[in-house]
Amino acid sequence: TYVRGIHTVTLIPGDGVGPEISSAVMKIFEAAKAPIQWEERNVTAIKGPGGKWMIPPDAKESMDRNKIGLKGPLKTPIAAGHPSMNLLLRKTFDLYANVRPCVSIEGYKTPYTDVNLVTIRENTEGEYSGIEHVIVDGVVQSIKLITEQASQRIAEYAFEYARNNQRASVTAVHKANIMRMSDGLFLRKCREAAEKHKDVKFTEMYLDTVCLNMVQDPTQFDVLVMPNLYGDILSDLCAGLIGGLGVTPSGNIGANGVAIFESVHGTAPDIAGKDMANPTALLLSAVMMLRHMGLHGHAKKIEAACFDIIRDKKVLTKDLGGNSKCSEFTEAICQRVLDLD
Amino acid sequence: TYVRGIHTVTLIPGDGVGPEISSAVMKIFEAAKAPIQWEERNVTAIKGPGGKWMIPPDAKESMDRNKIGLKGPLKTPIAAGHPSMNLLLRKTFDLYANVRPCVSIEGYKTPYTDVNLVTIRENTEGEYSGIEHVIVDGVVQSIKLITEQASQRIAEYAFEYARNNQRASVTAVHKANIMRMSDGLFLRKCREAAEKHKDVKFTEMYLDTVCLNMVQDPTQFDVLVMPNLYGDILSDLCAGLIGGLGVTPSGNIGANGVAIFESVHGTAPDIAGKDMANPTALLLSAVMMLRHMGLHGHAKKIEAACFDIIRDKKVLTKDLGGNSKCSEFTEAICQRVLDLD
Ligand SMILES: CC(C)[C@H](C(=O)O)[C@@H](O)C(=O)O
Ligand SMILES: CC(C)[C@H](C(=O)O)[C@@H](O)C(=O)O
Repeated sequence: TYVRGIHTVTLIPGDGVGPEISSAVMKIFEAAKAPIQWEERNVTAIKGPGGKWMIPPDAKESMDRNKIGLKGPLKTPIAAGHPSMNLLLRKTFDLYANVRPCVSIEGYKTPYTDVNLVTIRENTEGEYSGIEHVIVDGVVQSIKLITEQASQRIAEYAFEYARNNQRASVTAVHKANIMRMSDGLFLRKCREAAEKHKDVKFTEMYLDTVCLNMVQDPTQFDVLVMPNLYGDILSDLCAGLIGGLGVTPSGNIGANGVAIFESVHGTAPDIAGKDMANPTALLLSAVMMLRHMGLHGHAKKIEAACFDIIRDKKVLTKDLGGNSKCSEFTEAICQRVLDLD
Repeated sequence: TYVRGIHTVTLIPGDGVGPEISSAVMKIFEAAKAPIQWEERNVTAIKGPGGKWMIPPDAKESMDRNKIGLKGPLKTPIAAGHPSMNLLLRKTFDLYANVRPCVSIEGYKTPYTDVNLVTIRENTEGEYSGIEHVIVDGVVQSIKLITEQASQRIAEYAFEYARNNQRASVTAVHKANIMRMSDGLFLRKCREAAEKHKDVKFTEMYLDTVCLNMVQDPTQFDVLVMPNLYGDILSDLCAGLIGGLGVTPSGNIGANGVAIFESVHGTAPDIAGKDMANPTALLLSAVMMLRHMGLHGHAKKIEAACFDIIRDKKVLTKDLGGNSKCSEFTEAICQRVLDLD
C-alpha cells in the first residue's frame, strides 16, 4: 500500500533549529523526487479537558490520519509539572519501540570504524512508569514495571526488524541476575520470540557486559533489544560511537501502524536561525522513514548523497568540521542527488 | 595508624586463576618489601543457622579484625537460590562504595588515550534491593530503593575521595528527569555534599548524556558518583575504555573502616593452573589498597614497575598481547621493582 502514489507525512518542524533542518530535508526530498507531501503541524503540550496534558488536536488528528510523522527537536518545557514532549508523544501514539541504527559514517572520524548495529528500546514502561513513593521520611521507592505484553511486543518487533532488514542476530540486553523477576520476564519473552524466528541468531548479555564489550569492539553487535532505561543509555552510547546525536537517526514505532521518525539532538537555541545547523540526523531519520514505507530506492539515493558529501569533506557544517552553512550543505546534497540520477 | 609497622591483610585468593594471581601479587609485594603480612582465607557461601547465607566465620572474623582485604575472583555459584558471592560480601561488610580508578595504561593500546577518571558506585541499594513482585499475571514490578542515608554517605565519600586524591571535580550521574523522587533524592544529597566541599567542582549529568560523552571524549571526566545500577554499567564501560577488566583495579569501601580490594574479572577456568593468567588487575587493586592504607611509597613503586613492564612490551601475558607466562611477567615486575630501589 505504501509504495505507489504520493504519501502524506505529518511534519513537526519543532523548535530552535527545527524549522531550518526541516526545510533542508524538504529541499533534499524534492530534489530526489521522493513521493512525499508534507503536512506541517506544531506541537506543544496543552492542557486538555480535565487538566490532562495532551498534544494539540490538529497534530493528533494529522498523525492519526497519516500514520507517519517526521519530527525535529522540541524544547524541554521549563514550567514545573509540564511533561516532557518526548514522553507525551510516546504515550499519545503508544510508540513502543525506539529504533536507532548506528552505522559508522565514512569520512567522519571517531575512535571506531565499521560500527553497524541497531538498538531497539522498549519505550513505554520499565523504569519510566512514573510510579514513585516516599515510604518513610528519607526512603523513596521507584517502581519498574515490566509486563508480559510489552515485553512480547518489543521482542517480536526486534526479530521482525532483524528479518526485514537482513540482520543476522538479536541480542537481549538485561540484568536478570539482579532483577530476576522483571528482567527475567523480559528475557523469557525474548527467548520465546527467538524460538519463533530460528533464522535469526539469538544471544543474551548483561547490560554491564554489553557496555564493556561495546566500547572495546562494537563490530561484534548487530540488533540489540532491551527494556526502556537500558535502551535510553545504550542508544546514546552507540550514537556516541559514530559521532553523536547530530548524525544519528531515530525512529519510533507505535501501535496501529503509527511511526514517528526524529532527530534526537537538542534544539540548539544558540545557533537557531543562523543557517548553521546540521540537518544530517533529521535527514537520516527521514531516510529511515522512507525505508519503513518501502520506498527503498529514494532512501538509498538520498542516503548515498548525504554520505558522499560528508566523505568529500568539501561542504560541511561546523559541527562536522567544516565552514559551510546549513543551506550550502543542503544544496550540495541536492546537487549530488541530481548527479546520482 | 596505618603507616608504620607490619599490617595484616586478609587475602581471599578466590577460584580459578585466583590462587595464581594472588601468589603473583605476594611475590611482587615481597620484592617491594611492602610491610604486609597476608592472612589467607577461603570464601564460599555457606548456610548459617536459620538457613541464612553467610561467608565462613573464620573469613568474617579475619576481615573484622584486619579491616583490610584483598580478593581474587570468586566463581558464581551454579545452584539455584545460591547468592552471588559479590553481593553477599557487599552485604556482610556493608561495602557501600565501589571505587574504580580508570587510567589509560601507556603502551596498552585502546581507542582512547589519557583516560583518567574514577567511578564511585553506591553499592548497597537502588535497583539491587531485591524486592520484586508479581502484581497480576504478566505484570511484574521491581522496586528501586533510594535512601537519604545511603545517598548522603556515598555523596560525602565521593567528595572526600576527590579531596584526598587531588581530584578537581565530582559529577553526579542520574536520571532525575525520569525518576524525580528517587534519583531526585540522590541528587539532592550530592548537592548538599557539594555545598560542604566548595574546593571541589560539582556538576550534574544525565546518565545517557554521560555515556554519550564518555565514548566521545572520556578525558572530560574526573570523579563520577552514582546510584548502584548506573555504577554497575558505567564502571564496566570505563574499564572497557582502558583495556577491560584484566587491567582495571577496584576497591570496596565499607562501614567501620573495612575495605576490600579486588580484581573484577572472572575466574577464567579455561586457563586456571596453566600459568597463563594476567595478575595486573589484582596487582593494581593491591596498589589501591596500599594507597588506602597510606603506604604511598610502596604503592608508587609497585605501580611504576607494573606500568614499566607493560610499556616495555617484552614480557607480557597472552591477553596483553604477549607470549609470556604469568610467572615470567611477575618475575619481570619483581626485577623492575628491585631496579627502582
Ligand atoms: C528527554 C528524556 C525524557 C528522554 C528519556 O530519558 O527517555 C531522552 O533521554 C530520550 O532518550 O528520548
Ligand atoms: C555479579 C553481579 C551481581 C555484579 C553486579 O551486577 O553488581 C557485577 O556485575 C559487579 O559489578 O560486581
